[in-house]
Amino acid sequence: MGRLWDISNKIDKEILSFTVYKDNKIDEKLINYDILASITHAKMLAKIGIISEEEKEKILDILNELLKKAENNQIKIEIEEEDMHTKIENYLTQKLGELGEKIHTARSRNDQVMVALRLFYKDKLKEVEKATKKFIKVLKKFEEKFGSITIPGLTHTRKAIPTTVNIWIGSFVESLRDDLKLLRTVKNFVDQNPLGSGAGFGIPAIEVDREYTTKLLNFSRTQNNPLYVQNSRGKFESLIAHAISMIMYDINKLSTDLILFSFDEIGFVKLPKEILTGSSMMPNKENPDIFEIARGSYSKIIILEEWLNILPMNLISGYHRDLQFTKEAIFEVFETAIKTINIMAKTFSEIQIDEEKAKKLITKEMYATENVNKLVLNGLPFREAYKIVKRNLSKPKD
Amino acid sequence: MGRLWDISNKIDKEILSFTVYKDNKIDEKLINYDILASITHAKMLAKIGIISEEEKEKILDILNELLKKAENNQIKIEIEEEDMHTKIENYLTQKLGELGEKIHTARSRNDQVMVALRLFYKDKLKEVEKATKKFIKVLKKFEEKFGSITIPGLTHTRKAIPTTVNIWIGSFVESLRDDLKLLRTVKNFVDQNPLGSGAGFGIPAIEVDREYTTKLLNFSRTQNNPLYVQNSRGKFESLIAHAISMIMYDINKLSTDLILFSFDEIGFVKLPKEILTGSSMMPNKENPDIFEIARGSYSKIIILEEWLNILPMNLISGYHRDLQFTKEAIFEVFETAIKTINIMAKTFSEIQIDEEKAKKLITKEMYATENVNKLVLNGLPFREAYKIVKRNLSKPKD
Amino acid sequence: MGRLWDISNKIDKEILSFTVYKDNKIDEKLINYDILASITHAKMLAKIGIISEEEKEKILDILNELLKKAENNQIKIEIEEEDMHTKIENYLTQKLGELGEKIHTARSRNDQVMVALRLFYKDKLKEVEKATKKFIKVLKKFEEKFGSITIPGLTHTRKAIPTTVNIWIGSFVESLRDDLKLLRTVKNFVDQNPLGSGAGFGIPAIEVDREYTTKLLNFSRTQNNPLYVQNSRGKFESLIAHAISMIMYDINKLSTDLILFSFDEIGFVKLPKEILTGSSMMPNKENPDIFEIARGSYSKIIILEEWLNILPMNLISGYHRDLQFTKEAIFEVFETAIKTINIMAKTFSEIQIDEEKAKKLITKEMYATENVNKLVLNGLPFREAYKIVKRNLSKPKD
Amino acid sequence: MGRLWDISNKIDKEILSFTVYKDNKIDEKLINYDILASITHAKMLAKIGIISEEEKEKILDILNELLKKAENNQIKIEIEEEDMHTKIENYLTQKLGELGEKIHTARSRNDQVMVALRLFYKDKLKEVEKATKKFIKVLKKFEEKFGSITIPGLTHTRKAIPTTVNIWIGSFVESLRDDLKLLRTVKNFVDQNPLGSGAGFGIPAIEVDREYTTKLLNFSRTQNNPLYVQNSRGKFESLIAHAISMIMYDINKLSTDLILFSFDEIGFVKLPKEILTGSSMMPNKENPDIFEIARGSYSKIIILEEWLNILPMNLISGYHRDLQFTKEAIFEVFETAIKTINIMAKTFSEIQIDEEKAKKLITKEMYATENVNKLVLNGLPFREAYKIVKRNLSKPKD
Repeated sequence: MGRLWDISNKIDKEILSFTVYKDNKIDEKLINYDILASITHAKMLAKIGIISEEEKEKILDILNELLKKAENNQIKIEIEEEDMHTKIENYLTQKLGELGEKIHTARSRNDQVMVALRLFYKDKLKEVEKATKKFIKVLKKFEEKFGSITIPGLTHTRKAIPTTVNIWIGSFVESLRDDLKLLRTVKNFVDQNPLGSGAGFGIPAIEVDREYTTKLLNFSRTQNNPLYVQNSRGKFESLIAHAISMIMYDINKLSTDLILFSFDEIGFVKLPKEILTGSSMMPNKENPDIFEIARGSYSKIIILEEWLNILPMNLISGYHRDLQFTKEAIFEVFETAIKTINIMAKTFSEIQIDEEKAKKLITKEMYATENVNKLVLNGLPFREAYKIVKRNLSKPKD
Repeated sequence: MGRLWDISNKIDKEILSFTVYKDNKIDEKLINYDILASITHAKMLAKIGIISEEEKEKILDILNELLKKAENNQIKIEIEEEDMHTKIENYLTQKLGELGEKIHTARSRNDQVMVALRLFYKDKLKEVEKATKKFIKVLKKFEEKFGSITIPGLTHTRKAIPTTVNIWIGSFVESLRDDLKLLRTVKNFVDQNPLGSGAGFGIPAIEVDREYTTKLLNFSRTQNNPLYVQNSRGKFESLIAHAISMIMYDINKLSTDLILFSFDEIGFVKLPKEILTGSSMMPNKENPDIFEIARGSYSKIIILEEWLNILPMNLISGYHRDLQFTKEAIFEVFETAIKTINIMAKTFSEIQIDEEKAKKLITKEMYATENVNKLVLNGLPFREAYKIVKRNLSKPKD
Repeated sequence: MGRLWDISNKIDKEILSFTVYKDNKIDEKLINYDILASITHAKMLAKIGIISEEEKEKILDILNELLKKAENNQIKIEIEEEDMHTKIENYLTQKLGELGEKIHTARSRNDQVMVALRLFYKDKLKEVEKATKKFIKVLKKFEEKFGSITIPGLTHTRKAIPTTVNIWIGSFVESLRDDLKLLRTVKNFVDQNPLGSGAGFGIPAIEVDREYTTKLLNFSRTQNNPLYVQNSRGKFESLIAHAISMIMYDINKLSTDLILFSFDEIGFVKLPKEILTGSSMMPNKENPDIFEIARGSYSKIIILEEWLNILPMNLISGYHRDLQFTKEAIFEVFETAIKTINIMAKTFSEIQIDEEKAKKLITKEMYATENVNKLVLNGLPFREAYKIVKRNLSKPKD
Repeated sequence: MGRLWDISNKIDKEILSFTVYKDNKIDEKLINYDILASITHAKMLAKIGIISEEEKEKILDILNELLKKAENNQIKIEIEEEDMHTKIENYLTQKLGELGEKIHTARSRNDQVMVALRLFYKDKLKEVEKATKKFIKVLKKFEEKFGSITIPGLTHTRKAIPTTVNIWIGSFVESLRDDLKLLRTVKNFVDQNPLGSGAGFGIPAIEVDREYTTKLLNFSRTQNNPLYVQNSRGKFESLIAHAISMIMYDINKLSTDLILFSFDEIGFVKLPKEILTGSSMMPNKENPDIFEIARGSYSKIIILEEWLNILPMNLISGYHRDLQFTKEAIFEVFETAIKTINIMAKTFSEIQIDEEKAKKLITKEMYATENVNKLVLNGLPFREAYKIVKRNLSKPKD
């Protein structure tokens, strides 16, 4: 079966494949949300009298049948069908004939894809949140186990002041908890129902009941202005990516720490052999690939956010097909982030601290600031105390 | 007077200038916040008994004197002095001798700069908020004046469905209101007191009262973990930049709309001559430079956000001097955004809608969707109605 | 069969899958180059006496057998095998027993992957060049057909001076020809043989003959310093992406032109129905999706270049697993660019210019500059002539 | 005196300041090139008979007078004057009356700014080249002094194989030499004369002699298509930025190496006290700020390149005022890069290698690959030799 907009003009296969891009593949993972929204849309059409109750029931039966297939990943979308929207309408028409042709009343693929995406985002943001909480729990356990051990505090990649595992790991716990707050804000932002906004200018002639679909789909509110719905494409996705990038920022830093702190001559972090990888040529290598990839994943997220930022640049209000790329970007954001946060939680629980090695690193001069402060407590002005301690440090040791 | 960390080693002028970068210039605009925080720090030092009440009063006198200079933009910082922190301590020592040498007790330039920046951010975010609210007000007035006029709704830069100025401008109003919500979240995020965290590992030997400075400086809470304070450098700035980028995103889109909609053959937007600029060679030109620069300013903000995202990449926990660049980035973000939002508010109030030109653009085929929907209301299935209307459109006109 | 570096330590499946990432899938498209390089490597091992002539022949037989499979896309790489390097060695060992175990002598996967990638780049750059040349040819034909037609020249999205299709399309021809020059420079840059550099520090104890493999693999020179080989990972890829981004920049601009110039009220560009796409809701829509996606593809390329720029940031010399992401990035660069350039060439040949519509756009005031210049030729100073013409333009028309 | 395009319409000061942006400040550094091009333009006007020989001489006298001021940095451009082009014409008119009004014949500020920029780029690229060559020389000297010392070769931030200072530093020398090649290509790219292309559509009615100005200004060729001239704005700048980013990439990596290799527990790199900076609170700190800023400067360059990439995105052919930002971007690129390369050359000459510390780092297991290869030379298949050596490494040491 064909596309929703064909009548006479045939489209060249190469051209079609170019415009469909990865959409059919991506939509296979998204179609369950589209079906859910279609079910709601059918209920709304019945409520406002476009279809009868009986028609609604028939449509729901078929959509529920399709939903089951979707949930079992049994739906394949061919390039000829373009996307999930076409798949759904074609399926209905095939099963119900003329009745299937009613499903697209009072909606455009423009609002249809956005409602599916929003439902998807809400689920995925929950997954990110869950993974992050699990990771925080693992970090807290690590603190319990090793928290009181003294390790070198570094600034400028130079030994500065003794600190503890509690301070080190605690910094990530506090940071991730802030990240969770931002995640919740973003979730609330995204939690706006776009269904019923048509192609960005509402539905002519037919009065749709948007509050009804908002309620049924469990959105916290309706995104009122139909043009804002279209103009938020890319913008909301970028906000999601940014919130996630902050979690990945923490993982980038923690991974960098782990890689350096487990370096041979530093070594107070002990990575278990089970998570290290070897070299094909050098038998001596045990490499922290896992944390290198986790580290590098941050770059992927911020680059995807940047993509989302620039895609809609200098484009007038309303939909443009360029925005199709936002799907690819945001799918990669979620997939990369969830996988990485989970692997961090999984592997971190096996990491150890080598107290002996840590102790060796805490050399005398690291107490210089403490010595200054003790002189201060004895009445010396800070800067004078500082100079005295500094002068002593420069003296040749015997 | 010299730097805070010199004793013996002299530093080459070219090297110093390279490391100071633009810091002395930027700090001239930031120093009032550093003085305010120094006043608070002095009070705290008195409270915990490091300095006496009398000493505190002397220090406060001098700092208030310096603050007045700062507020009158009378403070110049030379490269030899490096930064505002050095300026302040040097000034105190010059005026108070040994007593001035006490001000840096229990603090590092690391937490000192961050508290100044946070205070600065809070003020600037308020400015952004104020400018945005003013802009929204101007847009609302515009809606009142021209809202009911019908204009073409476009998708894919193609005429789609008739819409109204209300829908068009309303999309920006609703979007900007969402932006304000995000701005408030970000303000709350940033509203954490870093003072007392030292160089990222707390203050050895001396028990500082961080809750006290949090209260005095009117922060909503203390940023507890000292290492998190340092690790949030760049991260918080990126979040600010992101929130602001969303406002600038709206301005990018609105400017793009204005430029196209006032193009000769479209022309339903009328830009007043007073805001247009001419050409040195072509007497006929009246160019919308102002909206081109507003449009381009979005690119500046997202690029600065990207800079903030990548600067701390792959660096271990704790401060690194690379992060100094975050100052330049965030200063440019605020300056560009505030100026642009204000100019939009100022110029928008003079823009007009040409109803006649708008009417001419609303050609018959734009009612196709409405016609489909009317057939649907008469009982036809949507897809059938769609096909009928499409077929009629393709018929040769006589 | 297992990985090349296992002896005792088992690796968790989830961890392995995380580290392998998309490598096994990507390597399926790259393995023919790896086999080619392996054939050369075997010849070199024979030349320096590590394997005998007879052994070499046996190895070459098997590798050629595998190469045939690769060329028919018959090779699947499972996650357990990690990558193409492992696939090849395992295949050899399976077929040849102990002799297969000799193939990895004097090489590391580090130089092995780079030689395969370089061979791949050289081929792909040729493809890009070929597609670009074809596109230029199509543009030249377009010039021949429509070149002399007068169209409006725009600056600031405002009518400026009459120009011709020759100037308009010619600007892209000249630009693309410059792009081809850059492409050739980049090809020369990349044309350095990395094989024999091991893991970045050469091959201990064994004297490899790098010039020999350079000659056999048809590289223009050997990349001498082994550490430079590793450090150029990401850097060379970024250079490739940059060169390609310049072609895509031209396509972005041309697509933007086409979309606006075919807009209803401008319309001097006529896009054939065959390449337009419709709307699911609005029967009147004929959308230039193809040029919107071509336009948006530029953003994808520059974002991938940016990824390549930041991935190696702040990492010390030598390989890091983060760099694995460079594969994904550069593969996407080539795929997106080649597809887009080809589609532009294909569709452009069907585009028409509507001379009537163009003529209507050339309004009187567009000759203002010409009028100024004519006054200048009659002896008036330019600025005075400019003012006279400008004053006349402002006069109310009757 | 006013702007070149004013007649009646007054422009608001705030609006003017917004559109002028930093242009007047930047133009103060660029004006000497604009004057040089104006001198050439006047000669060309005389050659084609627009002005007489005598008039030409008068104009050249005044322009040469102004050029001297420019070379002494004595020219200030006020916001009211907008830019250097206006400054020059106003200056001429002030001194020569009506004759000054002839200078702008047959040129637009569009081609005028581009010719000034191209001349500026050519000079600055030479500066970059010179600084890079000096840096290479310093590295070569370093190699001579310390080249034969054995240091640990690292992959994955893990000790891999012993290498030498020669390999380490040599990798940067070879890389920088490649960078120089790219720089030369870029210089050749930019070496195209845009003068005479007007606002992107040539000069109506007057036949200008572009080859003549190409020759006088010492360009290697004329950029023929006038619209390509305008469309290359941003594109050429991005190419320059990219070529420079590759040098900065090397500096980023080398700086990262220096910072880690001089870390207390590694320490085979010795940074002289003279280039280290201290802490205001911690007397023990000696920080490598200089290399941190050099490292961070890479991020600045790639972000500026990204800005240049996105600024022209989705804009139709021809000039747009958004492109004004390209000036700021490219000026920052040159300034940052030249300063950084010079400081690297300056400081590197004082760095030392601590042979003792290097030796301590070369632990036994780093010879594992060599041992494997020796077994291979004795006839063992590589993979078997590898397994033997690996098994020995895992044995508990006594």
